[in-house]
Amino acid sequence: MPPIEPVLYPRFNILRTSHIELTVEDLAASRRFYADILGMVVSEETTCGRLYLRAMEERGHHSLCLRQGTPAKCSVIGFKVFDNQDLDRLDKFFVGHGLSTGFAKRPHMGRVLRVTDPWGVPLEFYASMERLRPIHQQYRLYGGVKPLRIDHVNLFSPDVDAAVAFYNSLGFRLTEYTEDEETGRMWAAWLQRKGTVHDIAFTNGKGPRLHHLAYWVMSPMSIIDLLDLMSTSGYLAHIERGPGRHGISNAFFLYVRDPDNHRIEFYCSDYQTVDPDHEPIKWDLHDPTRQTLWGAPAPRSWFEEGTAFENVEVLKPVVAGTPIVAP
Amino acid sequence: MPPIEPVLYPRFNILRTSHIELTVEDLAASRRFYADILGMVVSEETTCGRLYLRAMEERGHHSLCLRQGTPAKCSVIGFKVFDNQDLDRLDKFFVGHGLSTGFAKRPHMGRVLRVTDPWGVPLEFYASMERLRPIHQQYRLYGGVKPLRIDHVNLFSPDVDAAVAFYNSLGFRLTEYTEDEETGRMWAAWLQRKGTVHDIAFTNGKGPRLHHLAYWVMSPMSIIDLLDLMSTSGYLAHIERGPGRHGISNAFFLYVRDPDNHRIEFYCSDYQTVDPDHEPIKWDLHDPTRQTLWGAPAPRSWFEEGTAFENVEVLKPVVAGTPIVAP
Amino acid sequence: MPPIEPVLYPRFNILRTSHIELTVEDLAASRRFYADILGMVVSEETTCGRLYLRAMEERGHHSLCLRQGTPAKCSVIGFKVFDNQDLDRLDKFFVGHGLSTGFAKRPHMGRVLRVTDPWGVPLEFYASMERLRPIHQQYRLYGGVKPLRIDHVNLFSPDVDAAVAFYNSLGFRLTEYTEDEETGRMWAAWLQRKGTVHDIAFTNGKGPRLHHLAYWVMSPMSIIDLLDLMSTSGYLAHIERGPGRHGISNAFFLYVRDPDNHRIEFYCSDYQTVDPDHEPIKWDLHDPTRQTLWGAPAPRSWFEEGTAFENVEVLKPVVAGTPIVAP
Amino acid sequence: MPPIEPVLYPRFNILRTSHIELTVEDLAASRRFYADILGMVVSEETTCGRLYLRAMEERGHHSLCLRQGTPAKCSVIGFKVFDNQDLDRLDKFFVGHGLSTGFAKRPHMGRVLRVTDPWGVPLEFYASMERLRPIHQQYRLYGGVKPLRIDHVNLFSPDVDAAVAFYNSLGFRLTEYTEDEETGRMWAAWLQRKGTVHDIAFTNGKGPRLHHLAYWVMSPMSIIDLLDLMSTSGYLAHIERGPGRHGISNAFFLYVRDPDNHRIEFYCSDYQTVDPDHEPIKWDLHDPTRQTLWGAPAPRSWFEEGTAFENVEVLKPVVAGTPIVAP
Repeated sequence: MPPIEPVLYPRFNILRTSHIELTVEDLAASRRFYADILGMVVSEETTCGRLYLRAMEERGHHSLCLRQGTPAKCSVIGFKVFDNQDLDRLDKFFVGHGLSTGFAKRPHMGRVLRVTDPWGVPLEFYASMERLRPIHQQYRLYGGVKPLRIDHVNLFSPDVDAAVAFYNSLGFRLTEYTEDEETGRMWAAWLQRKGTVHDIAFTNGKGPRLHHLAYWVMSPMSIIDLLDLMSTSGYLAHIERGPGRHGISNAFFLYVRDPDNHRIEFYCSDYQTVDPDHEPIKWDLHDPTRQTLWGAPAPRSWFEEGTAFENVEVLKPVVAGTPIVAP
Repeated sequence: MPPIEPVLYPRFNILRTSHIELTVEDLAASRRFYADILGMVVSEETTCGRLYLRAMEERGHHSLCLRQGTPAKCSVIGFKVFDNQDLDRLDKFFVGHGLSTGFAKRPHMGRVLRVTDPWGVPLEFYASMERLRPIHQQYRLYGGVKPLRIDHVNLFSPDVDAAVAFYNSLGFRLTEYTEDEETGRMWAAWLQRKGTVHDIAFTNGKGPRLHHLAYWVMSPMSIIDLLDLMSTSGYLAHIERGPGRHGISNAFFLYVRDPDNHRIEFYCSDYQTVDPDHEPIKWDLHDPTRQTLWGAPAPRSWFEEGTAFENVEVLKPVVAGTPIVAP
Repeated sequence: MPPIEPVLYPRFNILRTSHIELTVEDLAASRRFYADILGMVVSEETTCGRLYLRAMEERGHHSLCLRQGTPAKCSVIGFKVFDNQDLDRLDKFFVGHGLSTGFAKRPHMGRVLRVTDPWGVPLEFYASMERLRPIHQQYRLYGGVKPLRIDHVNLFSPDVDAAVAFYNSLGFRLTEYTEDEETGRMWAAWLQRKGTVHDIAFTNGKGPRLHHLAYWVMSPMSIIDLLDLMSTSGYLAHIERGPGRHGISNAFFLYVRDPDNHRIEFYCSDYQTVDPDHEPIKWDLHDPTRQTLWGAPAPRSWFEEGTAFENVEVLKPVVAGTPIVAP
Repeated sequence: MPPIEPVLYPRFNILRTSHIELTVEDLAASRRFYADILGMVVSEETTCGRLYLRAMEERGHHSLCLRQGTPAKCSVIGFKVFDNQDLDRLDKFFVGHGLSTGFAKRPHMGRVLRVTDPWGVPLEFYASMERLRPIHQQYRLYGGVKPLRIDHVNLFSPDVDAAVAFYNSLGFRLTEYTEDEETGRMWAAWLQRKGTVHDIAFTNGKGPRLHHLAYWVMSPMSIIDLLDLMSTSGYLAHIERGPGRHGISNAFFLYVRDPDNHRIEFYCSDYQTVDPDHEPIKWDLHDPTRQTLWGAPAPRSWFEEGTAFENVEVLKPVVAGTPIVAP
């Protein structure tokens, strides 16, 4: 299947993946992990069990909201849009596709449009979030992996081709993809809005489920520092995969699991994709350098485990098949 | 003076600073400098004395064109736009401002609109340039400073306030600026289109002149490698300023001079600015950490020397005043 | 078993591990690997099929000699001593232990004492080797992993306790070791002369065999550069293990295999051990952070495969037991 | 003047520069600087106004002792020797040279020999210091510049040739030196015991005075981190020179001044010098790459300011002449 023709002038301007909200079973343990180990900065902890965090370069109130609750789930993925008119256009678009929509009152944000995508994934769009003062030059506040900004989310999808088509119609552009030569179907796809390799990616598998969220870091050395810190501070078992360089995206990466098994990627060194004629790069499903340029396989957990979305049914993938696992 | 309100929905979509054309007096010497020392990759050298170069991540035919000639000048700065309709809208805009415009035939590009800005700076806009195959994962081709992509241009301007207002009306958004508290005028300004700190910047001084063009690199270590290479390969005198971290932009930098004294910056670690409500950061003209966060002063040459544009008169700045020079 | 009391004032002053000689089946292929990919500098290639190589910081004629021949073996490990009197003292020592010794004429070296250790490992000692002019500040010559100097050799040993005792009597001091708690025997040991974690190490296994030789590099980034280069230049299958940080030695590492399957480690960031009262660090055989601080297991090949010494019988280890392999 | 022939088998085995004691006027301010900003680890703070510090890799009780007092001086430089017999041999040596000696009781150390060198510099030698548990793999304790170990001291000397001759007779070997071609005298010299470029260095100038003490760090990135931290935490004015790479030693460096103006260097990437036939490298006094390979000049303060030794007269240099200062 050829890559889908991108909608270059979408009717709405989604700027970037902005934030995510996760349920966690022990907020204090999560705070230790995200703030003390990873180095995220706490914007606010509410008395009703919400912890808002941002990365060093972010001026919006939060890119991560942790909510005390059980079981551990993902409750929403947020995107920032250009202005409030985009919200009305998006509302019309989702209604037109027969999907549930609604404007919601949400802390620290202006108007918020809540919708679900065709697989039930809860999304929210907004144009303005409370702005905090810059801290990117307060170097005494940097710690852990020195996270700089949210980069992307990655979802298990039961039908990657259909997911790409839908998000493409929202204006997301394909940058790289893996194709199964035998079936001609996409196995995984990376799509972007902000001019990097992705804001959202989809991988074939039981879904919809959140595979991971990712923060951008300065350089591979920040990731090596985190590995040294985690392995000698009681978080050895939370290291899942890496460090390595992805063939796809060319980014240097590390995957860790938080205390509730939510997966976080630290990521750097991908490339600029602002040109609308930036050609998507196609990878063969059997190319060993696709997932790790250096050939190291990912562990089974990485192919199979993910975070369910709140109240969303998980479906079997349209394309059957075993994920590629290390021998 | 408060920062000028950005035009958020410009009538045309300029994507990014794309390329620059420089006249050089000895093309062979320039090739040695740019290809063998800096690590740029040659796309083409023509029999009529043009050398086209790209950086490792670029898929357009070139971001730098060197043309044998004398004296050494800058002949044009290029910007990529979203599509060909943008060119017509830009043509109308420049004509409406009483500025010279014209469509030109240029090698390796589709339709090209040539204009001059109000100070005579030659600009060209295009939507499509010949695409070359990706080389960003051919690591055996990386050398020198491992340049990744063109990042920005910086111009001496005789009237920074007016330059900011004009480029703002083209859709460039202000990210940081230096204000002279006494006069309330801008001393320098950084404006962007592609979601980083800048695509173009203006500094008070005799102009219009090109202060420098800049390439984005992976990390400070690439810059340190270049310093080691240049200082032990006969290019010691070509190192002008740095390494250091800018207060403004937070980027790690190095400035070098090419064989014709054109100034090139290598630059990394600035931040993302895609949010339209990204607040510009204001710096005081007397803050020593503004130019170098670590306090080291720039040499006098850095404040005074630049590349003239072909056939463009250099004016004295509206704001008199000595540039800040190291004691 | 408590660590053996080091002989602090040995009768001879062995300075450091100096060089190694390997037989390779295709010298041209080996030259491409060591010079073009790894970045070793060729000192000399003889018409009789010997290739001499040094690393960037080395001023001796070579630290690696490759000899065309079949099958691929290790023919000798070399150590530099303080002066020629040390050679006579070492001769007496080896003779006193009933071991074969003899003075040999060797290219590029002064007097050379050839001996075998109690397990038949061929060793050579010398005080002076032809000195070449420094190249460590000729940065245009740096390539590949930017190897700086030979750091150590590591051997499979059929009796680690006995090997440690013997090399200890030569003046090598224990810095770290792995003990099998059940048997009280050493599983692996690291011993040094030059004030770093090791010049030689022994690992339990069928031996004697060479496990690997190691070169010291500047930083983890040099190793990441090599991984990117090897995986995109046809040498993907030559990457065996890493990158990672060893628990033991705290060093950052990568293991690669050359065209004959000889194993090379690139290594940096270990620590200084010049104090004679530097306490050896003991590790438990079952500590997962021992081999890789970050917990990643080594592949089976790393535990089992090695290079035989020329004309030396390989013995089963005194301590039976399966090497620790990744599940 | 040819480099002095080193004494290869000195009668005593000085292992390395071990520690230094400085008087500081405000111990609390010094603690903030050394512990909170630089990242040194406090071993002990006594009620009588002494603060003992070590770097991350050090297992001796301290490499830096700060003593509340006025005015700010250097009270002693310490060296570790192989064993207690070395102390008796050193005592005899200094007595033989008509220099003052005496055994002293010092906290945290065994037998301590206190002497003065021919210019009155207070030195102390010891074989054993209280050993603390390793912390080099407790990565949560790393902060600031992540100092790893003391590397060397550098002294202004009124007679460099004579200083080199004296320390040479103690077993220190010359690795690099600057010669004034006109007079044939050494301008500066680097001498080592531990197998790196130096344990002690001498620079022509009013002396004896301490020019700086230096700590070894992991990589240039640690130094860049410190620059970012100091410049944004109220310590901008404490940055004196750098970052840069020395021509001499090839090391990457930064010089900072503590609250009492004592100068500290952070230093990495020099080379191994354990070979007794390691040829000293000679530099010309007028080579601009000598002090900084990249050509940047040092500030005047760096050439002129230093820390006096307690109760030691400062003499004019035998060789007159202005230090080389930036134009």
